[in-house]
Formats: sequence, C-alpha cells, structure tokens
Amino acid sequence: MHTYSSKLLEEVVEEFATLPGIGKKTALRLVLHLLKQEKRDVEHFGRTILRMKEEIVTCRECHNISDSDVCHICSDPYRDKQTICVVESIRDVMSIENTQQFTGVYHVLGGIISPMDGIGPADLTIESLVNRVKTGGCREVILALSTTMEGDTTNFYIYRRLQEYPVTITTLARGVAIGDDLEYADEVTLGRSLLNRTSFEETFKHSKHGT
Amino acid sequence: MHTYSSKLLEEVVEEFATLPGIGKKTALRLVLHLLKQEKRDVEHFGRTILRMKEEIVTCRECHNISDSDVCHICSDPYRDKQTICVVESIRDVMSIENTQQFTGVYHVLGGIISPMDGIGPADLTIESLVNRVKTGGCREVILALSTTMEGDTTNFYIYRRLQEYPVTITTLARGVAIGDDLEYADEVTLGRSLLNRTSFEETFKHSKHGT
Repeated sequence: MHTYSSKLLEEVVEEFATLPGIGKKTALRLVLHLLKQEKRDVEHFGRTILRMKEEIVTCRECHNISDSDVCHICSDPYRDKQTICVVESIRDVMSIENTQQFTGVYHVLGGIISPMDGIGPADLTIESLVNRVKTGGCREVILALSTTMEGDTTNFYIYRRLQEYPVTITTLARGVAIGDDLEYADEVTLGRSLLNRTSFEETFKHSKHGT
Repeated sequence: MHTYSSKLLEEVVEEFATLPGIGKKTALRLVLHLLKQEKRDVEHFGRTILRMKEEIVTCRECHNISDSDVCHICSDPYRDKQTICVVESIRDVMSIENTQQFTGVYHVLGGIISPMDGIGPADLTIESLVNRVKTGGCREVILALSTTMEGDTTNFYIYRRLQEYPVTITTLARGVAIGDDLEYADEVTLGRSLLNRTSFEETFKHSKHGT
C-alpha cells in the first residue's frame, strides 16, 4: 500500500509489523520515531534485542525466564521448595509474584493443552513437572491455570499424572472477584462460589492481611 | 510494578516502552513474542534495526529518506523537476505518492515552524529549499503543509523567502473532503470552500480521472 522511498525502511517496517497487534501504520510510526533518535540509542535498542535472544535462558528447574541456569526464585533459600505453583506462562509468574502472597516455587508449562491449536501434553513441560514431583520433596502442587476449558483439561491431565505420588494437588479458589458487584458476576462463577462457600471467620482472617 | 525474573528481559521491555504509544504491558507482550521466535528471526530483527540507522540517509536534494545519496524520486528522469512539492515529513511524501497524481519532486522540511515546541525556521530545511529555487529551473512550489496555525505560519514564511524569485507559489486546495457529509464539515472549511468554489466543469473534469 505504502510507497517507501527506501528499501531498507520498508524492511524494518515489515519486521515491526510481524509483532502482535502492530499493523503497518503503527510499525511505520515506530520506525520513523527510531530514525529520529540518536544513533547511540538506536544501536543500544538493536543490540539489546540481539543480546536478549543470546543470553536469556529458561531456568532448568521451573522453566521460568532467567539470566542464569537456575532462576532467582528457585535459587532463593527462603522460598519453600515443597510447594510448586503450576502456571501457563512467565506472565502468570509475574502476576502471582506481584501479589506478594506466595512463597513457594513455580513451574512454567509454556502453554496449556489445546487440541484446537495443536498443543498436546508433549509440547509442554509436564514431564519435567512429574520428574520434579518424583524426585524432590514436593508436598503440594497448586494448579494455577486459566479457568477455561483448556485450563480444566490441562488441570485434569496433570492431576492424573501426579495421582500416584504422595502430593496434595490444589487449584486456585474460584469465586466472585473482590470489589465486584454480585449483580455482574456470571452465574457459573456465582454458583461455584456458593457451593464452595467458606466460613466467615476464615474470610475475615484473610482480609486482615489486606487484599 | 512488574517483577521481572531476568534483568535483561526488563531492559528489553524498557527499550520497547520508549517507543511512542507502547506502554510497559504492550512492550512485555512484544518482547515475550520475540522470545518465542526462532533465534535467526530475532537476530534478523535486531540487525535490521542496526543497519537502518547506519545505512538510511536523507536525499541531498529533497531530504526524503533514501538508500542512496539522491533518492529514487529525485533521480527519476521522468519526474518533473520544475515542480517542487513542499511537505512536512516523509510520511506526507508517502501519502501524496499513494495518490499517484503527482509527477513532480518533493522537498521535506523535517517539521513545521512551531514556537511552542521551540522549532524555528533554522531547524527546518528551508534554506536548502531557497537554494534549490535559486539555482534550479523551478517554476512552481506547491506548499502542502498541515492546515493548522503552524502550517500557515510556515507557509507564510516560505512564501516571503521565495517572493523574490520567479516562481509560482501554490497551496493545496482546501475544502470539503470527498465523501464527507456537509452537515459534519466544520464551518471554517465550509466557508473557505464556498469562497474558493470551482466551476462545475472543472470539478467534473477531475472526477473523471477517479478520486
């Protein structure tokens, strides 16, 4: 559509346009912005991308993104290695870390089982999770996956794979979000939160720690 | 806000977040996408950015972005060198080229006079434009700047600088956009398009070429 006055410019725009949510127009805006910057800054930008792919590795324990062989969470002596929280992606690790409520370690699956997208158990790090449970002194595995059909399928698959080991398997509590109006909660969530109602004392105890 | 598990990851996210319209969340999404790609592709991405800043130059004639000393428009023997269209940025060159209605050459100012942003005539390529008019066989200068206060100021400044040379100075026609409902045209535009009304035959003649 666009008539580029430079082949190279076109090439850079095409590269940016491969990023998710970035169309040709946005890509052009980003590239023209970069072109206006100091040479040093743009070089730093390019080199950081090159370094990223070379130096960022995944933790051999939990598969989280890491600068070293074992990530800073797995190598932290104060983290409880007996509790493993299974998540879909490193973004979920960030979300849970932000709550500052979890002191255990993680296991990043790298996705969820989704036959529609051609992702089976073998494409995820489930085997490695089974190994961790088999060899380590793990006592609890918390399944913190999406509350979708794919998430439930993956939960169930992992549950079956871990059944033979002496480990407690739990999932995140599901219910009405804090701050939400009951009126706007969907009926499935509302129904579940009625079924899994907790004693008032327990709810109160937790809310004292802040939400 | 985010707890990054890798210093380098954080660095790349920060770099992306400096781009216009890209916040931390979007930056993280882009970087995680890049991390999932093949090493070869990411390297190509980084290297293209590095090459861009090294190899892309501005045309010494019109200041358009170019792969060589003189851009492909200025070096095209079929373009009419006697008609120079003055625009603000290379994006405007692209827009006008896309219309396929212009066969002359361009002059990219690199901005418009805007005292509020501290941009004066000396920050733009106006001197170079005056030189082109002075030395070359230019017959018409088309001022194709934004129809804003800053655009009008710049138009007027250029007009005064070129007054002494035997050159016709024109501006883009201003009026109701094609396809627009009269109801929604602003009153200034509508008033001007009434004042500068054109003969029906002329309008009809142009619309035959397709809009």
